[in-house]
Amino acid sequence: MEQNTDHTLVFLGSCQESVDAELTRLLDQASAAPARLREAMAYSLLGGGKRIRPALCLGAAQVVGNSVEEALVPACAIEAIHAYSLVHDDLPAMDDDDLRRGRPTVHIAFDEATAILAGDALQTAAFEWLANAPQLDADTRLKMVAELARASGQSGMVGGQAIDLASVGKALSLDDLETMHRHKTGALIEASVRIGALTAGDHARERLPALSRYARALGLAFQVQDDLLDIEGDTAVIGKPQGSDAARDKPTYPALLGVDGARSHLRDLLTQAQDALADCGTEADPLRAMADFVVSRSH
Amino acid sequence: MEQNTDHTLVFLGSCQESVDAELTRLLDQASAAPARLREAMAYSLLGGGKRIRPALCLGAAQVVGNSVEEALVPACAIEAIHAYSLVHDDLPAMDDDDLRRGRPTVHIAFDEATAILAGDALQTAAFEWLANAPQLDADTRLKMVAELARASGQSGMVGGQAIDLASVGKALSLDDLETMHRHKTGALIEASVRIGALTAGDHARERLPALSRYARALGLAFQVQDDLLDIEGDTAVIGKPQGSDAARDKPTYPALLGVDGARSHLRDLLTQAQDALADCGTEADPLRAMADFVVSRSH
Repeated sequence: MEQNTDHTLVFLGSCQESVDAELTRLLDQASAAPARLREAMAYSLLGGGKRIRPALCLGAAQVVGNSVEEALVPACAIEAIHAYSLVHDDLPAMDDDDLRRGRPTVHIAFDEATAILAGDALQTAAFEWLANAPQLDADTRLKMVAELARASGQSGMVGGQAIDLASVGKALSLDDLETMHRHKTGALIEASVRIGALTAGDHARERLPALSRYARALGLAFQVQDDLLDIEGDTAVIGKPQGSDAARDKPTYPALLGVDGARSHLRDLLTQAQDALADCGTEADPLRAMADFVVSRSH
Repeated sequence: MEQNTDHTLVFLGSCQESVDAELTRLLDQASAAPARLREAMAYSLLGGGKRIRPALCLGAAQVVGNSVEEALVPACAIEAIHAYSLVHDDLPAMDDDDLRRGRPTVHIAFDEATAILAGDALQTAAFEWLANAPQLDADTRLKMVAELARASGQSGMVGGQAIDLASVGKALSLDDLETMHRHKTGALIEASVRIGALTAGDHARERLPALSRYARALGLAFQVQDDLLDIEGDTAVIGKPQGSDAARDKPTYPALLGVDGARSHLRDLLTQAQDALADCGTEADPLRAMADFVVSRSH
């Protein structure tokens, strides 16, 4: 585990570096856009995220034998979708959060209208970047657009946010909770891995089922760990007020399973994720290490 | 003019019918999405819009010799972008409008969080529909995705909304006002025509410059007429409180040019739009009639 975590930190660090540089370059392309809008987009997108989704995308590209280079723009597009969802999720009419990653949220640092527009433009940018991604043929880019849209729209991430809003204060079963998370965060995590694999074009097909299984287990594990951190972590480390989910009466894994039950569920999901990669060779080591990282992270 | 208007009403009516049927079909595809979210999307998208952008897309497809069928899904994708922009534009933090097309706006009929999510999901749906549009090859669909994203993002429509927000209460020059409108509404109108022409693949290239000139003049004409209607129309006909732009101290053409000056500018733009189609035959009659319609409409 220790060794894997070291491996992950190197891999994650290298991903963060290349993704941050590429995001900066992509944002600079639209230099004619209004300054305040561009600043809000950059504030949200370059605000020090862990780049877990881009790293999963780049890790999956490595599994199918591709270099980081071909998957870099798609990885940035996925991060732009993630960033837009956070900006809108934090809005007063949604979760009403003032703090994200230890900094004021976009509607606090700028204003609410700018936050709405910055989120909108980040979503559009994701599809524009994907459509213009270099080194990939039209068919592959189009498959990625379709994959990202399916995962992030009404049947995926946004649908999950709608389920989340509707479930505040309600007693959910474990099945209901998992359905919500599979949509809200799981779909984009699965798409991250699948889009990375799609860099290999048709050759990706044989690896897609295993990679999808890995990503589905990892996506839920990520959420269980998030819930555990929310009750166990402290505000300074996790970057948002500790206990904020419970305070809003949101359903969580520890509330349904108890803390020990949630920890045990987390271990099961980690095993499922690792088992899914059993037929892959050392080229899947970054993804293996990412799974260990997700369940052991402290924020 | 009368004849053209009759022609337009037949063309627009036929477009409305096929676009409404296709939008209903496309929305029904995502039957697994949460009900309230789907209802809000349908409320916004099927709420009786004039379908001017889809009609321009279908009209342009006819100019390059293509049938309505191939341009129908792209036309619906454009309308989804338009609908999402209206939902978000009406939000309390933006224009704070309670009424749209004579009905309560989405955040009034549902709630603010649902309106944010419905707008987000409508944008995603637009790109998903385009990526999966039938009867078009991957390269064409990808070009359409790139075109729609460029026109609707930070350098296009959303950028224009940011300029609009920043310009409330400010004295704008005519150049500034046109820059704002070229982004806020012009870019999507131009993209509607260009995407329609792209149904012809590479054969579209020779027609694109003329069609773009037509669309740029029409986009501005549309806005001048909107400003004139805002001070001349009545609430029952235009579907929003008359004088609402002036009341918010938004810059308008009549404020800058006077009512007569704005009317004269409108006629010039109409001439530019019609002149751009001079080399096209009768296949461009629907677009010619659309231009007459836009400047003579009463709402």
